[in-house]
Amino acid sequence: MGSGPDRSAPPTVGRKRDGAAAAARRSPLPGAEATADGPSWPVPLHRGRFSHARGHEQRDTAGVAAATAPVPARGGAVMSGTALEQLLRGPSGIGTAGLNLAPRQVVEAPAGAGAEVPSGKPKSGDPVPGLYFHPVAEPDAGRVAEVNRRIKLWAEEIELYPPDWEEQFDGFSVSRYMVACHPDAPSVDHIMLATRLMVAENAVDDCYCEDLGGSPVGLGSRLLLAHTALDPVHTTAEYQGGWQESLLSDAPRRAYRSAMEHFTGAATASQADRFRHDMARLHLGYLAEAAWDQEGHVPEVWEYLSMRQFNNFRPCPTITDTVGGYELPADLHARPAMQRVIALASNATTIVNDLYSYTKELASPGRHLNLPVVISEREGVGDRDGYLKAVEVHNELMHAFEAEAAALAAATPVPVVVRFLRGVAAWVDGNHYWHQTNTYRYSLPDFW
Amino acid sequence: MGSGPDRSAPPTVGRKRDGAAAAARRSPLPGAEATADGPSWPVPLHRGRFSHARGHEQRDTAGVAAATAPVPARGGAVMSGTALEQLLRGPSGIGTAGLNLAPRQVVEAPAGAGAEVPSGKPKSGDPVPGLYFHPVAEPDAGRVAEVNRRIKLWAEEIELYPPDWEEQFDGFSVSRYMVACHPDAPSVDHIMLATRLMVAENAVDDCYCEDLGGSPVGLGSRLLLAHTALDPVHTTAEYQGGWQESLLSDAPRRAYRSAMEHFTGAATASQADRFRHDMARLHLGYLAEAAWDQEGHVPEVWEYLSMRQFNNFRPCPTITDTVGGYELPADLHARPAMQRVIALASNATTIVNDLYSYTKELASPGRHLNLPVVISEREGVGDRDGYLKAVEVHNELMHAFEAEAAALAAATPVPVVVRFLRGVAAWVDGNHYWHQTNTYRYSLPDFW
Repeated sequence: MGSGPDRSAPPTVGRKRDGAAAAARRSPLPGAEATADGPSWPVPLHRGRFSHARGHEQRDTAGVAAATAPVPARGGAVMSGTALEQLLRGPSGIGTAGLNLAPRQVVEAPAGAGAEVPSGKPKSGDPVPGLYFHPVAEPDAGRVAEVNRRIKLWAEEIELYPPDWEEQFDGFSVSRYMVACHPDAPSVDHIMLATRLMVAENAVDDCYCEDLGGSPVGLGSRLLLAHTALDPVHTTAEYQGGWQESLLSDAPRRAYRSAMEHFTGAATASQADRFRHDMARLHLGYLAEAAWDQEGHVPEVWEYLSMRQFNNFRPCPTITDTVGGYELPADLHARPAMQRVIALASNATTIVNDLYSYTKELASPGRHLNLPVVISEREGVGDRDGYLKAVEVHNELMHAFEAEAAALAAATPVPVVVRFLRGVAAWVDGNHYWHQTNTYRYSLPDFW
Repeated sequence: MGSGPDRSAPPTVGRKRDGAAAAARRSPLPGAEATADGPSWPVPLHRGRFSHARGHEQRDTAGVAAATAPVPARGGAVMSGTALEQLLRGPSGIGTAGLNLAPRQVVEAPAGAGAEVPSGKPKSGDPVPGLYFHPVAEPDAGRVAEVNRRIKLWAEEIELYPPDWEEQFDGFSVSRYMVACHPDAPSVDHIMLATRLMVAENAVDDCYCEDLGGSPVGLGSRLLLAHTALDPVHTTAEYQGGWQESLLSDAPRRAYRSAMEHFTGAATASQADRFRHDMARLHLGYLAEAAWDQEGHVPEVWEYLSMRQFNNFRPCPTITDTVGGYELPADLHARPAMQRVIALASNATTIVNDLYSYTKELASPGRHLNLPVVISEREGVGDRDGYLKAVEVHNELMHAFEAEAAALAAATPVPVVVRFLRGVAAWVDGNHYWHQTNTYRYSLPDFW
C-alpha cells in the first residue's frame, strides 16, 4: 500500500492540524490571506490519518449468525442462508474487499485497558498495535487517475487554491481516498459526487475552523453562512441577491455550493435532505469543539465522545447509496436501529482519526483535544494508558457497529438495507486505508 | 382576545429578552442560579410577541387560482375544483379559522418603503399598522384549560422551575398558544406533543442563550450536549452512562429529553428525524447570533435574514402533521418546493417576532439585533424607516409563502400535502394570535 502522490506533498502538509479543537496553534501557510471572513482560498485538503495492517486473523463479528437468517429479496422472495451470506460477503475483485459484513481479515484488539498489547515497535506504515480494522484491496488505479484528473479541473473551475499549491492538493490524494471508500460506485461520475463534497468539507474545516485562517471566534457566523450553500436561504427579492453573491465570495463557499449542486443533481430530495442534516450535525460539532477551545476547557470523556459523534465523518458514509447509484428509502434510513448503526460506524472512524494524528498533535503548540489526551487528563492516567484505552474505545465501537449492522440486516431483510450497510462498512474500511497510506504525515507514539 | 393568565404574570416577564442576540443585557431574575453549565432550572417560557387585528379586508393570495386546478384525492381520484376549494378553505367552527389556503381576512400591507401607512396611532393590542396577517378564532377554552393542567403537571414532573415561579409559567400561556396553532389536532394528547416541545425549546433558549444564565461563551458546548437529548449518543458501555445521566442534570436537558421521548412515541421515525434536523438548524442559528453578539458585529441585512431562517420557529410548524395525527411522507416533505414553502412561512413568523419585540428590545441595555435595527444600521435609514421596511419584508415573505403554498398544492395534488400546508398556515396564524394576546409584554413604537 502507500502511494506516490501523498508522499510528494511538502512538509507543511504534515503539520496540518487534525480533528480536534486547536485554534491555539494557528500557523497559516505563506500566502494564506486571512480576513475577518477567513481566507479567500484554502490549501491542503486532508482530514484523516492512518497506518498499516499486520497480524491479521479471522474473526466472527457478533451477530453475524443472526444475519444469516432467511432474507426476502426485493419483491418479497425469501433468500436462502447461502444467498444471504453471499450478499453480506459482497462481490469479489478489485475494490470490493470492503463489501461484506461476513468475516473479514481483522487485527484483534487487546483484551482490556491494562492488558498486554502486541509486542514490538510498529514500523512506519504499521497500524496502531491492537487496532481492530479490515484491510482493503488497493483501489482501482484507472479510477483513481480519472477522479484525480477531474477533481483538479473542478478545483481550478471554482478557484479552490492558487496554482502554486497544486502539489499540496495532490498530496491530499482525495481521489485514492474516495475510490477506496466507494468500491461499488457504478461510474467515475458517481465517485466525483463524493470527491467534490470531501474536498469542500475539508476546505471549510481548514479555512474556517483550523490552521488556515480559521478561529473559534466568529465561527458560528461563518459556518451558518457556509451552511446556506447546502441549505438555501428563501428571502425577499431585494436580499436574495446578496446571499447568492456570498456563495461565490470565498473558496469554502464556492466549494460547498458547487459540490452540492452536483450532488442534488444526482440525489433524490430525501438523500439531499439527509446530507443537509448530517452537515448541520457536523457544523454543530465544530462549534462545540470551538467553544471548548475558546475556554481552554477539557471536557469529560463522555462529553468529548458526544461532540465527536457530531464533529464526525458521518456525512461521508451516509451518501454511500447516492454514490452507489441507488437509494436507501428515507423511512428505512430514519429507523432508530439504522441511526444507531450509522452513529457507531461514524464514531469508530473518527476515533481512528484521533489515534493516527496523536503524535502530530502532541508536537504542535498548545493542547489539542483528542480521545487519548482527554482520557489521560480526565481519568488521571499517563499518556500511554490514555492512548491504549482510546484504542479499546475504538475497537468496542467497531465491534458494536458490526454486531448491530448484522442484527439490523437480519431484522430488516431488504436487499437495499443490506447493500447500504455494506456501503457504510466499505467506507469505514476505505477511510482506514486512506489514513494508512498517509504515513508521511503520521507516526505512532513510542508506547510499545 | 387576550386572556387572563398572560396578564397575571409579574412585570419581570415582560422584560424577558426576545429573539435576537443580546447576551449584553443579562438580567437574571431573582433565584436564577447560573452555573458554568447554566442554571439548573429556567423560568418564564415565552418566545413570541404579538398584537391585534383591525381594518380587515378580503384579499386573494397570489396563486390561489392555480390551486383550484383538479386535485386527486388519496388513492388517485381527481377532486373537482369546488372540492379543492373546500379543502383549501378547510373546516369551519371553533379553532379552525386558520385552516385554509383560500382567501382569508387580512390586513393589507403598505405599498412601498416610503409609502403611506395606515394613519392614526395603534392602541394597545392593535396590530403593527400595515402588517399582513390572518386573525383566528379564539382557541377552544376547554382544550386550553386541559392542556394547561397537563403541562403544569409535566413541568412539575421534570422539575422545570421552582414552585414560586408558577405564576410566571402561567403567564407564558403556552396552552393557549399551542391550542391556537394546532386547531386540527385530534386530541389533547396530540397538542401536548407540541406543548412540551415548545416549553422545552424555550427553556433551552432562556437558560443557555439568553437572560436566564445564558451567554454566547461556551454556548456551542451547551447546545450540542442539549441536542443529544434529541439525537442520542451511541458510545461504549463505560461512557454511555455519563451521557445518560447528563440528560437529567439541568432543566433544559430534562425538558428536551422528556418532550422528545413523548414525541418519538407518537411520531414516525421520519417525523422524528425531520424534527431533529430542524432543531439542529435552530441551534446553528443560535450559534451564529451568539458569534455576532460576542464580536459586537452588526450583520448585513441578508446575513441577518439568513441567520433568522435558522434561529426560527421552523421546528414548530413542521410537526403539524404529527400533532394532527397523520404523516406527510418524508419524500414529499423533502421536495425543494415544500422546503421553500416551509422556509418562507417560518421566516415570516420570525419577522413578526422581531416587530413586536422591537420596543422592548430598544428599552433594554445594549444593542439588540432585530430586523428593524439591522436595516437602520446597514442601510443608513432612521429607526422609523427601518421598522416600516421590516414590515414590508414580513409582508413579502407572507405573500410568497401563500403563493408558493398554493402553487405546490396545485402541482402536488395529494390530500396529505394540502393538509400539511393548511397546518403550516394555521400555525403561522396561531403564532401571530399568541403574540397578539401578549400585550402586557409588548407595545408598538411611536411611528404612526
